[in-house]
Amino acid sequence: MTLPSVGIIMGSQSDWPTLREAALVLDDLGVAYEKRIVSAHRTPDRLWDYGVNAVDRGLQVIIAGAGGAAHLPGMMASKTRVPVIGVPVQTQALSGVDSLYSILQMPRGYPVATMAIGAAGAKNAGLMAAGILALHDAELAARLDAWRAALSASIPEEPVDE
Amino acid sequence: MTLPSVGIIMGSQSDWPTLREAALVLDDLGVAYEKRIVSAHRTPDRLWDYGVNAVDRGLQVIIAGAGGAAHLPGMMASKTRVPVIGVPVQTQALSGVDSLYSILQMPRGYPVATMAIGAAGAKNAGLMAAGILALHDAELAARLDAWRAALSASIPEEPVDE
Amino acid sequence: MTLPSVGIIMGSQSDWPTLREAALVLDDLGVAYEKRIVSAHRTPDRLWDYGVNAVDRGLQVIIAGAGGAAHLPGMMASKTRVPVIGVPVQTQALSGVDSLYSILQMPRGYPVATMAIGAAGAKNAGLMAAGILALHDAELAARLDAWRAALSASIPEEPVDE
Amino acid sequence: MTLPSVGIIMGSQSDWPTLREAALVLDDLGVAYEKRIVSAHRTPDRLWDYGVNAVDRGLQVIIAGAGGAAHLPGMMASKTRVPVIGVPVQTQALSGVDSLYSILQMPRGYPVATMAIGAAGAKNAGLMAAGILALHDAELAARLDAWRAALSASIPEEPVDE
Amino acid sequence: MTLPSVGIIMGSQSDWPTLREAALVLDDLGVAYEKRIVSAHRTPDRLWDYGVNAVDRGLQVIIAGAGGAAHLPGMMASKTRVPVIGVPVQTQALSGVDSLYSILQMPRGYPVATMAIGAAGAKNAGLMAAGILALHDAELAARLDAWRAALSASIPEEPVDE
Amino acid sequence: MTLPSVGIIMGSQSDWPTLREAALVLDDLGVAYEKRIVSAHRTPDRLWDYGVNAVDRGLQVIIAGAGGAAHLPGMMASKTRVPVIGVPVQTQALSGVDSLYSILQMPRGYPVATMAIGAAGAKNAGLMAAGILALHDAELAARLDAWRAALSASIPEEPVDE
Amino acid sequence: MTLPSVGIIMGSQSDWPTLREAALVLDDLGVAYEKRIVSAHRTPDRLWDYGVNAVDRGLQVIIAGAGGAAHLPGMMASKTRVPVIGVPVQTQALSGVDSLYSILQMPRGYPVATMAIGAAGAKNAGLMAAGILALHDAELAARLDAWRAALSASIPEEPVDE
Amino acid sequence: MTLPSVGIIMGSQSDWPTLREAALVLDDLGVAYEKRIVSAHRTPDRLWDYGVNAVDRGLQVIIAGAGGAAHLPGMMASKTRVPVIGVPVQTQALSGVDSLYSILQMPRGYPVATMAIGAAGAKNAGLMAAGILALHDAELAARLDAWRAALSASIPEEPVDE
Repeated sequence: MTLPSVGIIMGSQSDWPTLREAALVLDDLGVAYEKRIVSAHRTPDRLWDYGVNAVDRGLQVIIAGAGGAAHLPGMMASKTRVPVIGVPVQTQALSGVDSLYSILQMPRGYPVATMAIGAAGAKNAGLMAAGILALHDAELAARLDAWRAALSASIPEEPVDE
Repeated sequence: MTLPSVGIIMGSQSDWPTLREAALVLDDLGVAYEKRIVSAHRTPDRLWDYGVNAVDRGLQVIIAGAGGAAHLPGMMASKTRVPVIGVPVQTQALSGVDSLYSILQMPRGYPVATMAIGAAGAKNAGLMAAGILALHDAELAARLDAWRAALSASIPEEPVDE
Repeated sequence: MTLPSVGIIMGSQSDWPTLREAALVLDDLGVAYEKRIVSAHRTPDRLWDYGVNAVDRGLQVIIAGAGGAAHLPGMMASKTRVPVIGVPVQTQALSGVDSLYSILQMPRGYPVATMAIGAAGAKNAGLMAAGILALHDAELAARLDAWRAALSASIPEEPVDE
Repeated sequence: MTLPSVGIIMGSQSDWPTLREAALVLDDLGVAYEKRIVSAHRTPDRLWDYGVNAVDRGLQVIIAGAGGAAHLPGMMASKTRVPVIGVPVQTQALSGVDSLYSILQMPRGYPVATMAIGAAGAKNAGLMAAGILALHDAELAARLDAWRAALSASIPEEPVDE
Repeated sequence: MTLPSVGIIMGSQSDWPTLREAALVLDDLGVAYEKRIVSAHRTPDRLWDYGVNAVDRGLQVIIAGAGGAAHLPGMMASKTRVPVIGVPVQTQALSGVDSLYSILQMPRGYPVATMAIGAAGAKNAGLMAAGILALHDAELAARLDAWRAALSASIPEEPVDE
Repeated sequence: MTLPSVGIIMGSQSDWPTLREAALVLDDLGVAYEKRIVSAHRTPDRLWDYGVNAVDRGLQVIIAGAGGAAHLPGMMASKTRVPVIGVPVQTQALSGVDSLYSILQMPRGYPVATMAIGAAGAKNAGLMAAGILALHDAELAARLDAWRAALSASIPEEPVDE
Repeated sequence: MTLPSVGIIMGSQSDWPTLREAALVLDDLGVAYEKRIVSAHRTPDRLWDYGVNAVDRGLQVIIAGAGGAAHLPGMMASKTRVPVIGVPVQTQALSGVDSLYSILQMPRGYPVATMAIGAAGAKNAGLMAAGILALHDAELAARLDAWRAALSASIPEEPVDE
Repeated sequence: MTLPSVGIIMGSQSDWPTLREAALVLDDLGVAYEKRIVSAHRTPDRLWDYGVNAVDRGLQVIIAGAGGAAHLPGMMASKTRVPVIGVPVQTQALSGVDSLYSILQMPRGYPVATMAIGAAGAKNAGLMAAGILALHDAELAARLDAWRAALSASIPEEPVDE
């Protein structure tokens, strides 16, 4: 059994339709991951445990998505040196700009690798995780290169009316 | 010795020039308080302890100021049911809108009573704390009424050239 | 009969779908409240009366929701020292940022405890009111602790596809 | 003695450097005015009295400037049908966008004629007041036409290095 | 036949659903008006003529609505001293903030009395026009007072579930 | 066969419904164009080739539309001195403000002629291209003049209820 | 004597420090230009004349800079088919976002080629004008190519401490 | 000689005072790096070469800072699968929000790990790079843990007046 090298965590079930994009691209690339709901406010102790044990459990990258006040990615970055990738989930009133600022504007010492707002950001979180893992996994690097090449090759020359 | 009923906490020393406004108005109103640096990211365990013990230590109100990602007020609201008043500290690039959104946009379950950005907000945090305490402290209520009346009385009829 | 300790006021009937969230959570917690339409602009004298009599009527907390120019919470804070919690109602063109700034940016002397924009903010307004009342009501404090514990316990370990 | 037809009111002494621009242009145009500090929050009863008596006192236009939550113009519009011109005063953290939204986004029934943020807006408030008065004052109309013609005539053909 | 004292102009047919609110309230108040499409960019000469002749045609107030670059209100204010009330029409990408800034941020000399974005602003434009005309029309003043009183009287005491 | 003088390029097929507006107006004006998908990120070499060869291929204007990070117009401006017109495509979370800033805020040396966000901007891109070509094509200039005159002539005098 | 092919116009003398960047780069490139103050609001007839005569006077490009409501570029685009390049001048309260939206968000039919806010935008306006003229001026094209090559060549390999 | 595992690149010399923060923290942690000026617009071929050769040169992380249109980080992410960390440099008119959106809002396929605006973001870029390298460098991991522990230990208990 492959131990997961990537942890995908999110503040609530409602974030999953966004974060699933990260999971899908990791599936495509053959990267093992786990997915968990870890709410910074509702389950702070779960957040604590997840962060404290991240290194020992062998996690290499944590993808954390949240919306609104969105404290999950930043608090996780406080609790572990495992690289944290943050995904701002789009919100109703402020379109995810609230999520973005809460995730992005971290103080010196605790970086969060912030992705674009919403599903595109989640997919790119998966790719960023793969890119980090590929630094020491030549097979994954090859698969990632192929994935990128296929994306480039898929672009038609001209737009078509639909 | 009067045990403090208000805790003023802030993310770093650099927040103190803002938060001091809260302390000064509590001094004016004769409300005992303590002041602490509690960084959500640099001292998360201090945050945990402060929150877990807030009720038992007899804190009635917590004033929490922070800038940027500003996770302190919201995480404190997660750890204790003692009312938390949040003060968004003004920041360089985003003028404190980042601080504001991180403090304000809390998910269901964990309210933070958000004040205006900057020093005016800090002063009002002190007054809000006093207003809460005054609900069960008739002498403080009288002092607060007097403070408000004096403020009203201080307004001149006409503006003057300076 | 229990006299209400919380007043929920709003600028118009159209704010009620938002503010009802505050009422519902107060129902859950067994906190008595009244609900009134008090328009700062259309019924300013009603606002005046409500504010002037708030202390004598025994109100402990006022939850005030409004949208757009949203002067109700701030004007109420001017007329009474009873703590005022403001709920910015989402608006069509500006998504409630107009409501937010009008409620939040109060001058020194007249704090409004501002909540998140929209229904989540209204629910949190109810919880903030309960937290204030719980400072001197041990039974309510226990119910609030239980409510919070139940919320935490409701979070599943993993997200599920829907 | 000429009774003033224009009332210039403002929330605090600190607004006067902005509002003075309105006074100066009214001086230029020979329009009588009074100037008062009327704080919506600190002196709400003064606001009430000013609004209730505006028609009987013969005021034709009220210029109201304020910053931040800036409730003065809108509350005045609630209390009198005398046309209210609002001037958003520039603020520190939000550059007067807070003032603007609070003044502009009035609900149906209570218009405030909002001017640009800051001193340019204050000057234009004076000119708007003069334009309203000029509808029934041919001499003022002539002076206003001359003022406008002089402004147009003052523009050089080419920019010069300074 | 009553000559219209108010001109309602707009940049295009698509602005009419918004501006109609101004017309409807003027109908309610018995104020005569005309309505015209005057595009600043597509019919600049029409704009010129309208502005140059406004005084001689006896117009007392011009309500000008436009969206996007929204140059109509400001250019009209350049061409006539008749008071111009501007209505920012809501837009698709920028929600009318573009319309607002273009109308509001007029340079010294050429005020535009800016209303709220969208239909509420249009209705208030009609009321502002009526308020200006009522300064010298006692019957209209009485009707406006009655309109305002009826609005106040229409507010129920309590919200109802719908 | 007429060689195209205008190149319409876009970041992806999903931009075509916006950019088609440019094509349609060029069709109306009898201006030959080609349309290509050139993704700055997915097909950077295609971008390189397109830019390097633009002058030799006789392109007179390049219309480049993109959304989000929207690097296509700016990178094209880096690779060729052929005038580049940029069209910010509207986006989901940030309404095209992200596209706008990425296209507009070019550093000294590499101008992009930025149009309004969305379809109106695309149509105007076509007209701007025609205006540039018309400087040395008297027949096109006449057609453009006629197009503009027809637009002006199409504006009715009064709005109608629909 | 060389007739100017570029007209640099601006709303006021205060815009010249920004617009001078356009003039300087045209000097560098040997492009003749004229510079004029043309205020949309203070000198609308001058704007009219300038636009109506632009084609006959042989202008090939008009660079128009303005701040705030910034109607100059768009109104000029309404009056002539000569390509108009707009430069949003930075403003005090809104940093030039007001200028930007007023210039950018033009309706279908009247494009303005909008540049970045401030001096960088002005310099790029000059370069865009040169790029348009270079389409039919091989010597200018060569000078522009050289200018661009020199800019590229001026970039050092490594940053240095200063 | 240690080959650098981190490349710090920036759009111009003027970005160095911001990006130096990344270099300084890498110095503290004993991580070898190189620093280069690579302008997306002025030296696009340098960008191309840097990206194409990044894997072969053994770069493990690229830190890319830029301001305004800020195409450097995103274009680099297009050219190499080596993880790219983006630092939005603060700008004059738009405070770095332009830089932020251009760096952050990347399309699916090409992630950029975006940091906070300005110097804090640059320092965190260095720490994020170290965190990635520490996944396979136990000594660096220990130094990073120590660095983080020292930061936590440096926080005093109480704020002091200065």
